Amino acid sequence: MRTEMANSEQTLKDTMVLLSRTPIALDALLRDLPDNWTHHNEGGTTWTVFDVVGHLIHCERADWMPRARIILEFGESRPFDPFDRFAHQRESHGKSLSELLDEFASLRTASLAELKALNLQSFDCGRRGRHPALGVVTLSELFATWAAHDLTHLHQISRIMAHQYRTAVGPWSAYLGVLQCNGHSS
Amino acid sequence: MRTEMANSEQTLKDTMVLLSRTPIALDALLRDLPDNWTHHNEGGTTWTVFDVVGHLIHCERADWMPRARIILEFGESRPFDPFDRFAHQRESHGKSLSELLDEFASLRTASLAELKALNLQSFDCGRRGRHPALGVVTLSELFATWAAHDLTHLHQISRIMAHQYRTAVGPWSAYLGVLQCNGHSS
Repeated sequence: MRTEMANSEQTLKDTMVLLSRTPIALDALLRDLPDNWTHHNEGGTTWTVFDVVGHLIHCERADWMPRARIILEFGESRPFDPFDRFAHQRESHGKSLSELLDEFASLRTASLAELKALNLQSFDCGRRGRHPALGVVTLSELFATWAAHDLTHLHQISRIMAHQYRTAVGPWSAYLGVLQCNGHSS
Repeated sequence: MRTEMANSEQTLKDTMVLLSRTPIALDALLRDLPDNWTHHNEGGTTWTVFDVVGHLIHCERADWMPRARIILEFGESRPFDPFDRFAHQRESHGKSLSELLDEFASLRTASLAELKALNLQSFDCGRRGRHPALGVVTLSELFATWAAHDLTHLHQISRIMAHQYRTAVGPWSAYLGVLQCNGHSS
């Protein structure tokens, strides 16, 4: 039990470090990049890099800390509000990618300040809430998912960008794993 | 023909912008991150994030600009030197991740300076060389592959890191695409 508690404290610390890195890493990768990289998708109704950053912003507003607050206040008695996977299309309309990157960085900073101020202890991380589709989840799982969600979208962004060079790489496509990825991370 | 020429000039320009971003994005994401993120692999003999950065360094020394030089000097008459996918294990030994990030950034800056100094014109991008396994390839394909290779490893890095939270996310694993990725990008 003691080990598990230590692990969950360590996990939260590691999670927070990673969460603080995502906005600056995306900024370094994407700001002022040619539109060929950021405003083209993988065909059909798939997302562009611009869409993905908009989605990260919407999650920051509607998902992570709001869900943590619901768990802390209501436990399993109140399920999370349903999440709108397409809200970003409305919210990002007319904005530039630079504006989205600024907005994401600022929201993430605020989320992490709020999380830090909660001063959660190991036993808090085991507190349970209710996901409308997945059922019972813990606060600790919510925070781990927050970090893994950043990574799933970094994974997706690298795939969307690589897709733009699918033809340009010629025979090397056989060696480039990212071009074999089937889009499970959309 | 004119359109193709314009495209290949545009592609080279877009490629160079992306290539300049990778080291700073990796630095922003990875420097001083807890070892749990950077020194754990996906099991067995798979690579850690540390290994991947070492591999990017080796490519910078042995692959991209050296191959461009071979194409420009020898065309199809001299195949590229074979590439050692495991050289980084020897070369990174005893170094810290911070040292690797510095080394990668410095080599990439030098590569891009060399590429810029070549002052390649559109018609140069069609020049042909010989890959020991893939056969005839063009300079343009080599440069596009350089960028897509950065992206394949960013894709891999995000997957390796997400793997560390495979259990911690609990039932949310079903929603996280990166956890379904089968490692095609190693």
